[in-house]
Amino acid sequence: MNKTALLHITDSNYCFPVSENEIVLRLRTAKDDLENAYLIYESKYLFAKKRKKAIMRRAYSSSLFDFFEIKLKLADVRLAYVFLLESGGKEYYFSEDGATETYDFSMCYYNFFQYPYINKADVHESVGWLQSARIYQIFVDRFLMGDTAKDRSYITMKWGDAPTPKSHAGGDLKGIAKKLGYIGGLGFDTIYLTPIFKSGSNHKYDIEDYYLVDPQFGTNEDLKDLIDKAHARNMHIILDAVFNHCSKNLAQFKDVVEKGRSSKYFDWFIIDGDRISDDGTNYEMFATCRHMPKLNTSNPEVQDWLLGIAVHYIEKYGIDGWRLDVSDEISHAFWRRFRIAVKEAGQRVGREIAIIGENWHDAVGYLRGDQYDSIMNYAVTKACLDYFAFGKLDADGFACRLNEILVRNTSTVNNMMMNLLDCHDTERFITTLKGSRVRLKAALALLYLFPGAPCVYYGTEILTEGGPDPDCRRCMDWKKAGTEKYSDIAEHLKKLAAIRKRYRLYDGEVSITSGNGVFVFKNTNKRRMIELRIKLGGAEDDCFELNVT
Amino acid sequence: MNKTALLHITDSNYCFPVSENEIVLRLRTAKDDLENAYLIYESKYLFAKKRKKAIMRRAYSSSLFDFFEIKLKLADVRLAYVFLLESGGKEYYFSEDGATETYDFSMCYYNFFQYPYINKADVHESVGWLQSARIYQIFVDRFLMGDTAKDRSYITMKWGDAPTPKSHAGGDLKGIAKKLGYIGGLGFDTIYLTPIFKSGSNHKYDIEDYYLVDPQFGTNEDLKDLIDKAHARNMHIILDAVFNHCSKNLAQFKDVVEKGRSSKYFDWFIIDGDRISDDGTNYEMFATCRHMPKLNTSNPEVQDWLLGIAVHYIEKYGIDGWRLDVSDEISHAFWRRFRIAVKEAGQRVGREIAIIGENWHDAVGYLRGDQYDSIMNYAVTKACLDYFAFGKLDADGFACRLNEILVRNTSTVNNMMMNLLDCHDTERFITTLKGSRVRLKAALALLYLFPGAPCVYYGTEILTEGGPDPDCRRCMDWKKAGTEKYSDIAEHLKKLAAIRKRYRLYDGEVSITSGNGVFVFKNTNKRRMIELRIKLGGAEDDCFELNVT
Repeated sequence: MNKTALLHITDSNYCFPVSENEIVLRLRTAKDDLENAYLIYESKYLFAKKRKKAIMRRAYSSSLFDFFEIKLKLADVRLAYVFLLESGGKEYYFSEDGATETYDFSMCYYNFFQYPYINKADVHESVGWLQSARIYQIFVDRFLMGDTAKDRSYITMKWGDAPTPKSHAGGDLKGIAKKLGYIGGLGFDTIYLTPIFKSGSNHKYDIEDYYLVDPQFGTNEDLKDLIDKAHARNMHIILDAVFNHCSKNLAQFKDVVEKGRSSKYFDWFIIDGDRISDDGTNYEMFATCRHMPKLNTSNPEVQDWLLGIAVHYIEKYGIDGWRLDVSDEISHAFWRRFRIAVKEAGQRVGREIAIIGENWHDAVGYLRGDQYDSIMNYAVTKACLDYFAFGKLDADGFACRLNEILVRNTSTVNNMMMNLLDCHDTERFITTLKGSRVRLKAALALLYLFPGAPCVYYGTEILTEGGPDPDCRRCMDWKKAGTEKYSDIAEHLKKLAAIRKRYRLYDGEVSITSGNGVFVFKNTNKRRMIELRIKLGGAEDDCFELNVT
Repeated sequence: MNKTALLHITDSNYCFPVSENEIVLRLRTAKDDLENAYLIYESKYLFAKKRKKAIMRRAYSSSLFDFFEIKLKLADVRLAYVFLLESGGKEYYFSEDGATETYDFSMCYYNFFQYPYINKADVHESVGWLQSARIYQIFVDRFLMGDTAKDRSYITMKWGDAPTPKSHAGGDLKGIAKKLGYIGGLGFDTIYLTPIFKSGSNHKYDIEDYYLVDPQFGTNEDLKDLIDKAHARNMHIILDAVFNHCSKNLAQFKDVVEKGRSSKYFDWFIIDGDRISDDGTNYEMFATCRHMPKLNTSNPEVQDWLLGIAVHYIEKYGIDGWRLDVSDEISHAFWRRFRIAVKEAGQRVGREIAIIGENWHDAVGYLRGDQYDSIMNYAVTKACLDYFAFGKLDADGFACRLNEILVRNTSTVNNMMMNLLDCHDTERFITTLKGSRVRLKAALALLYLFPGAPCVYYGTEILTEGGPDPDCRRCMDWKKAGTEKYSDIAEHLKKLAAIRKRYRLYDGEVSITSGNGVFVFKNTNKRRMIELRIKLGGAEDDCFELNVT
């Protein structure tokens, strides 16, 4: 047995409660190294004297590892356990002291693994609607101008022209409200909007006033109206929370520019010196953008202010979730307070609030149930690029990668992930694919079936092209929408949405494998099996099959 | 290269900030598998274009693994990195996508490792005094009766008789206050007291009134007096927080017994049904002790109440820390609030408060800087038993085990660990050793040098014997204390304490190795080296050497 491959970490993605009396345990081993893995377990106060034994399921396999998994229902929620491994005809115990040929149960209280007690407060509760959601992402300035009577003097590009970093096209909230029927008709039940608050830019990731909808996009009443109309259609609205940084025109920053250390907002930012230097480089900022000063989210005053904003749009406007911009650069301490405040606000107004971080990398430190619910799942994006577009992964490599991704986080988190092929920060997936419809459809099928919620970037349904930012933010071409030429894509999206809506995918057992160059995804439960098979042969040989049986 | 052995987890004990601009990174590899490990790193916004390269130190080795480590000082605290590994003359990159022979830096934003930003609020701050503390643990009823004028009718055993589970001997807080000179004279600067609040038992782990010092042990004024006297000697006092459960005589539980679900305290406990059953088994309790109902620490009201208690003894009495009983069975959600409340209270009164959990097992879920500072380090206890007493580990095995223990947690946590050979819940170490003075001394030397603070159980200095509870709770034999017969132990403790006091051990680089059957512990910095060599040959061949050069 390859002892170096064994991995189990208690109270982590390898051991997590999924309800007040259910727990999932995972064990990593070298690939094809074990005949069987068993869990030896019992209430920790009885474990020295008696134990239960249960076989574990080989649930995931990557190129190097197998991952065994078991879900237990516990009468006594104080769990002690060790693993019993069969490899090469021999038996090994695996405890906190590693793999050993014998195990001394009389001294087990020193080195069994344990989940000491499932406290209700530590169970990561699922956001019910998110688990079956179909999300449509909109870059607001480029979707539709709904209010043609507004002051349009800010508009600097003709609808449909190539976007530049600073051009404004005129899209707004009224435009989105008008198209709820269109969006819902494609099978989406959730809309994620890039930022909408007062800001000089077209993307509005540099906010000047968090309490004001940008007049370019409409009024605060327009926002309320959009949300009410969405709710009337059982749709959900997710807004973009830009809490890592702000605009240099935020009143608090301007006060600091003026008064230096004597400003009461001086500690709202992270400044090297007593005042903002003339060249504007002596403070922390987003990336290298000096017009976007970083907020000091270690400062409780800043935390309070941001929490007030987060709660305001839940209580007064009824939003259903926050997508958190550059969330990985914000303190865990802040996100812990954020979760408590936001979830409590949701309870007060009777809504389940989703918290979705923008973390491009492994975010396990934010996904333990005390901070976000999930993230934008860029690991899936990258795997899809490597398989569908770059040819860096074959079917087996793709299956292995997706298995690894599923083990990174708890199943609770997996089922709430925001899975995406592209967004306002990436090249359009269809462009990277060089226009292959069948590969896009296959990738979308996977996206809709993979644990978590698919997030489809506006215009995907009409094969909108686009290179990296700003080209990926083109105006929606309404002349194409709903036409015969793209009906296959629209029908595909509708069919996928219907599957997600009808079947409780988050209740099924997922298996991701490959054989003979065919990638096979299955989601199975007692009542049905959903199977997606993909074969990439290049050009005409690309094909996929989606069956529900 | 053995790819299955590679392990790195960002934002964990493998990657943690130690100050606002310093971070420690660790990498696990198979033992003796690498020629070199390098860190390739840069600000994440520059990483695609340029990188720095630094060699990592092979800092720890266990039986299966090497652990490489590096500490970086960062100008830009937004860190991206991959590892470059040299093995068998070949080079490998190790990123979020695993070990690969090439690495595409142009797509690195998808799969580099990162620590996205060191926010001050996320840095686990050290409790300064704890890092060099020498702790003396007292089981109060058995230490010394200082108040001979008190009502002694509760005393049921003669001082020095064999303890029974329910016998009371008469020790009290005045007794401890009288012996501060004695304790300090042995080199201790911190006292940890088992519980002292109102309770019917001798151990007082079943508390009836958290705001009242048990009259058997004295008055609340006696507690204040003890703490003031300790502080006058620059000593610290740690009390025992029993927050997992209480006594069935707690007013709130009695109210529930009386009123069932209509009691306003019904949700303070975890009850199956609408009332406490006549046989008293339908509620959660500590272990199987129905006279110790478990408190529902998921309930915010219970949290508030317990936090009030925790803060009270900091603000009104000036205690220096809480040891947390059965802390692993209490919700993380509670401990997060506890940390914030307790640390803030400490700041208000100008004291650094230590938070030390009673977790017998891997407690990484509690030791990320948002909950405890450290735990009672039973993993070290077990390793010492296996090496010094049971012969289950030889010098190499012992060294390997201790290396593994050091990698379990961050260096910040390691330097605050409460390391112990025995306590009120275990057999006395000298008894398990079958009386070997030299082995006890060698073990104590290790305990004092190992990262963290040594915690010595009262009476160790006079070789007090004792089997498992209740025998390990014998009365202190003051006739032996300070006599010639035990002066070697006392001198040894003093010498070890002097080394801890004089040298900043937590600043040194630790190396734990073995060779020719000799266990070698070193703590080195630029100015000095402290070396402990232990050889166990059995009987007269046991020996150890401690040198400072």
